[in-house]
Amino acid sequence: MERPKNHLIACLNAIFHPRSIALVGASNTFGKWGQFIASNIIAGGYKGRLFPVNPGHKEMFGLPVFARIADIPESVDLAFVITPAKTVPGVLDECGDKGVKGAVVITSGFGETDQAGRDLEKEIVKIGLEKGIYIIGPNTMGIISPYADLFATGSHSRPQKGSVAFISQSGNLGNQLTHWAEQQGIGLSLFVGSGNEAMITCTDYLEYLEQDPHTRIITLYLESVGQGARFLETAMRVNRIKPIIVLKGGRTEAGRTAAASHTGAMSGDDAIFRGACRQAGIVNARVPSELLTLSAGFSSLPLPKGNRVGIVTLGGGWGVVTADQCSDRGLTVPSIPDAIVEAIGRHLPPFWSRGNPVDLVGTRDLDAPIVAVEELMKWEGVDAIIVLGIVGRDEFVHMLLRSVREVDPDASPELLKQIEDMSRTYEETFISKMGELMEAYEKPIIGVSLTRTESGTVRPLPGRRYSGVYYQTPETAVSVLARMAAYHRDLAEKPG
Amino acid sequence: MERPKNHLIACLNAIFHPRSIALVGASNTFGKWGQFIASNIIAGGYKGRLFPVNPGHKEMFGLPVFARIADIPESVDLAFVITPAKTVPGVLDECGDKGVKGAVVITSGFGETDQAGRDLEKEIVKIGLEKGIYIIGPNTMGIISPYADLFATGSHSRPQKGSVAFISQSGNLGNQLTHWAEQQGIGLSLFVGSGNEAMITCTDYLEYLEQDPHTRIITLYLESVGQGARFLETAMRVNRIKPIIVLKGGRTEAGRTAAASHTGAMSGDDAIFRGACRQAGIVNARVPSELLTLSAGFSSLPLPKGNRVGIVTLGGGWGVVTADQCSDRGLTVPSIPDAIVEAIGRHLPPFWSRGNPVDLVGTRDLDAPIVAVEELMKWEGVDAIIVLGIVGRDEFVHMLLRSVREVDPDASPELLKQIEDMSRTYEETFISKMGELMEAYEKPIIGVSLTRTESGTVRPLPGRRYSGVYYQTPETAVSVLARMAAYHRDLAEKPG
Repeated sequence: MERPKNHLIACLNAIFHPRSIALVGASNTFGKWGQFIASNIIAGGYKGRLFPVNPGHKEMFGLPVFARIADIPESVDLAFVITPAKTVPGVLDECGDKGVKGAVVITSGFGETDQAGRDLEKEIVKIGLEKGIYIIGPNTMGIISPYADLFATGSHSRPQKGSVAFISQSGNLGNQLTHWAEQQGIGLSLFVGSGNEAMITCTDYLEYLEQDPHTRIITLYLESVGQGARFLETAMRVNRIKPIIVLKGGRTEAGRTAAASHTGAMSGDDAIFRGACRQAGIVNARVPSELLTLSAGFSSLPLPKGNRVGIVTLGGGWGVVTADQCSDRGLTVPSIPDAIVEAIGRHLPPFWSRGNPVDLVGTRDLDAPIVAVEELMKWEGVDAIIVLGIVGRDEFVHMLLRSVREVDPDASPELLKQIEDMSRTYEETFISKMGELMEAYEKPIIGVSLTRTESGTVRPLPGRRYSGVYYQTPETAVSVLARMAAYHRDLAEKPG
Repeated sequence: MERPKNHLIACLNAIFHPRSIALVGASNTFGKWGQFIASNIIAGGYKGRLFPVNPGHKEMFGLPVFARIADIPESVDLAFVITPAKTVPGVLDECGDKGVKGAVVITSGFGETDQAGRDLEKEIVKIGLEKGIYIIGPNTMGIISPYADLFATGSHSRPQKGSVAFISQSGNLGNQLTHWAEQQGIGLSLFVGSGNEAMITCTDYLEYLEQDPHTRIITLYLESVGQGARFLETAMRVNRIKPIIVLKGGRTEAGRTAAASHTGAMSGDDAIFRGACRQAGIVNARVPSELLTLSAGFSSLPLPKGNRVGIVTLGGGWGVVTADQCSDRGLTVPSIPDAIVEAIGRHLPPFWSRGNPVDLVGTRDLDAPIVAVEELMKWEGVDAIIVLGIVGRDEFVHMLLRSVREVDPDASPELLKQIEDMSRTYEETFISKMGELMEAYEKPIIGVSLTRTESGTVRPLPGRRYSGVYYQTPETAVSVLARMAAYHRDLAEKPG
């Protein structure tokens, strides 16, 4: 179907930033989808007008309930449809009459089931086209639009505002990844569970995100792509200005069999699709967790302009395994010139490594890690820095203090409190200083905490161009850095 | 040097299960190694006799302090030496005179530094041999012997008792991994930071662990191996009865350069070493985190007798990406016979996947996941099961309940409490049921929680042969399963 692109964008904009919402099939019965969505939107703090629609109720969540859409006394931008499949065409008809611009059809039982379901799906598309309603789904787990304070998924994860958009053809993967995004502090600009994509396809979402001012990074989980040529052409164009990270489910025969039974759609020839993505410089993820870790890096750090890495580590073994992993991933760990060795050495005991990795040999000199990073940042011989164990050490200090409080009756509580505060403050100061250095030298600094922190992977730095990124393992840091370097290289080779 | 093996084992046994300990260089000054070790041993609940030695103090941590080792009024099994390097020979001499069996030399400044350090190291080995003291280290970050309630590392992580022994040639990697083991609930039988291995090498530790009744799995982080042939011969023998998992630091040129600057030792030809390990059926890890994830699986689950996997998933997308990953790792996802499809189908809505992966399509039927797993376990067509999203769902229920409590004034608090309890109890019941099935059918069931749980990866099941293992991501589950299948295959092909 042909639709003018500007109209699509305007309508999606109304859907993702609605002034008013009708919830058709809202419920307050525990465990119903009508309850999942209603309670999430309300608890999530949606600021627009909200109209539950359900003929069996007068009031729900303290709000008046309307028997029919037509009864709503104001205009409605967006409708969520959560009624049984066979009633959906009628509901959409009423939405059309009401002038609703878009509908998120949560209901399943359409193209993913049988011939009757496929026929029903065709029917709702027909109504959408006739009545000018853009339909998301059907069979979607919902949408999240953080800048509209709209959290409308079955799962109640509420990631913060940010620059990563995520479009998922799988509901449960969407659940998982939005949940991880919230836990890791990765801010989203948008999440859409695209469901059966009866009317709006992932390519349409790409066109919308291309111009969305909040989105800087786009992540996609795809199982099947219709109109492959149009998708690739669009993705290639968008990827030049906003990095696209794709996980293709059904990369293998076993995966394709699973995908076919689950969506009803056949995924195309994957080797061709992935090859085309690679040629277009699009970042291929292999596993779901990479969508998150790559998003964190791409959205928070400057791109490395080459593959040469400086490593600063609080301990030797970490440096060794990180250097190994750099080699595995095509990154180099160049030796550093004498002048830099000397500058760093002024802050370290005599028997330090005198090379790259810079092994801080567990130093407690608070300046040493900062000096080491800054000296390497200044040097034109590296394109990125990996810092291991500085952020994260606070957890070890904390464990030590707990023991001392338990067993040393002579320890001064004031001194212990002072050490505790100093350790915490130092990490904050360090993270902030790293942000400053990234801005000054336009090179990424990727941290590895090595401990499981509660502060999340991304540490926002208000007023700064970049955020801190602190992964838990060296392998994640190295893998993300290698992908960012490859993206930069591909882009430099193929200027738009 | 030639030492009778039985004597080595007896001495190491005394070191790891000492009745009394001297802490030479104990301190209560915050930030000193003498304080790290002393406060950790005491707070960790060591039950034997503990004698701090330090001429400058009378009392410390509420214990009397002795000026010299000779002053200790009782016999001493083990000494920790935390005094400056140049004083260590004298301290060891005194230990010898006292009849101390073993010394853990924490102090650095030996072979890892310069010629003077190497000479000093030779001197302490000479004293050890003359006086019959076995020396761990020098330059070690300490040891943990959970069955002796002995936590004697600089880092205050205290993993619980278990069956995984971990020997590390890197102190900071040791810190990190014992910390992760504690967080993930992976029980240890022993941790040793082997330091410079002046007198006791990783091969010696292998011989000790071969007969240690608490140890079932052995993990090693190695940078350099002396007497390679003896190591491989020993490892090959031990690996037949206790799986050995090795991470070799310095796999690459960059890693070797880093290792050489940090330990002073040259790591040998890695390709040969790794090739030999592979031939011996030893499990090669590529990154530190794998040492943990593999330990969890090998120590808690029965070995899969083949590479055929049944997948049970709460959602389609998870099944797709897991099937993809199985293919990546050489595991197969066979189609299941009609009889099993029918048996499972009785608990599922009509449009379920009717195949492997078994997609439970978000069912809330509490029996469905258990029936699905049990039907697959009974079937001789699969060797292992991966279960996705059942354990971990509780976190989503919890988030939903939080919203409902906030926004629904009509919701019954009793009902909500009941749902909360039921959800939590169900997970426990499920985990316990999986343990029962593993025992009945001797096939591993690997869980994937998909959420970051606080309960840890390993869920102990008292009275059962196996424990529950619930990783956070499908890729971890698949990777561990593939390694376990390979280990079983290699062993079956090369019977001892």
